[in-house]
Amino acid sequence: MYSILSILVENKPGILFKVTHLFRSRNFNIESISVGVTTDHDFSRMTIVTIGNEKQIQQIVKQINKMIDTIDVKILNQNKSVYKETVLFKVLKNSKLNITKLNELLEPYNGKMYKGDISVIIELTETPDKIIAFEEQIKSYNILETARTGIVALENNEH
Amino acid sequence: MYSILSILVENKPGILFKVTHLFRSRNFNIESISVGVTTDHDFSRMTIVTIGNEKQIQQIVKQINKMIDTIDVKILNQNKSVYKETVLFKVLKNSKLNITKLNELLEPYNGKMYKGDISVIIELTETPDKIIAFEEQIKSYNILETARTGIVALENNEH
Repeated sequence: MYSILSILVENKPGILFKVTHLFRSRNFNIESISVGVTTDHDFSRMTIVTIGNEKQIQQIVKQINKMIDTIDVKILNQNKSVYKETVLFKVLKNSKLNITKLNELLEPYNGKMYKGDISVIIELTETPDKIIAFEEQIKSYNILETARTGIVALENNEH
Repeated sequence: MYSILSILVENKPGILFKVTHLFRSRNFNIESISVGVTTDHDFSRMTIVTIGNEKQIQQIVKQINKMIDTIDVKILNQNKSVYKETVLFKVLKNSKLNITKLNELLEPYNGKMYKGDISVIIELTETPDKIIAFEEQIKSYNILETARTGIVALENNEH
């Protein structure tokens, strides 16, 4: 089962190393990670997707909480959360690539396109399932490179 | 000076730890990192933003190249690259938050809004300078949480 951890830490050099070291030493795999400073630049928020049963997840949360630089750790409720990922695909501009068709494909995803001389970069911000669906639609194209951010997520507050 | 490194590695457990360890042991700070599998799931691409002079950057590239799991490392030409970041802001739904006004602010950035009972999550995928500009525009709101992905980038091929 996938869990999404949202971790608020002090924005200090080496904090990413500490967290990845913690996961590594507990034999926990990081499926995806995204890191960035918050509005208050003294802090950073990490969003980590990991796999484990409830007991294992509780254990890693406890370990992260023990770190001196940790302010807060939350296991996000995926039903209440907005979670998105940005992916860039670089595709070759060849006879298989129909720009008009690609524009039509991108429209429902609110995607963007950046044309170079011999390649086109496609930008998409979506939920992981929609990214997979889009990737399926462009698999006949010659995809030269892919880069993705990893999932970023926040939970909306409800009554 | 900021440099953007695009690193293609084998998709193996512990690879993130190895890379962060390398940066840590060379006293290089990682300003931002984003990691994700490529279209071929045997490989992952990391986009790392770091600061250093040309000599220092060349040195870290050399060290990354020496890693057994590294397939390719590139220093991206920022003028030819598409680079974006996704940021989520959670803002409190209070009297200061005018939803109509927020929608108008979001429009030029192609941003989205997800309304909860007592908070609203704003989603934005943009270049870092535009994210800073947008953040400035919403600073009178009560921002409860921020999460960002770190920069993802690819270089367009030119003749």
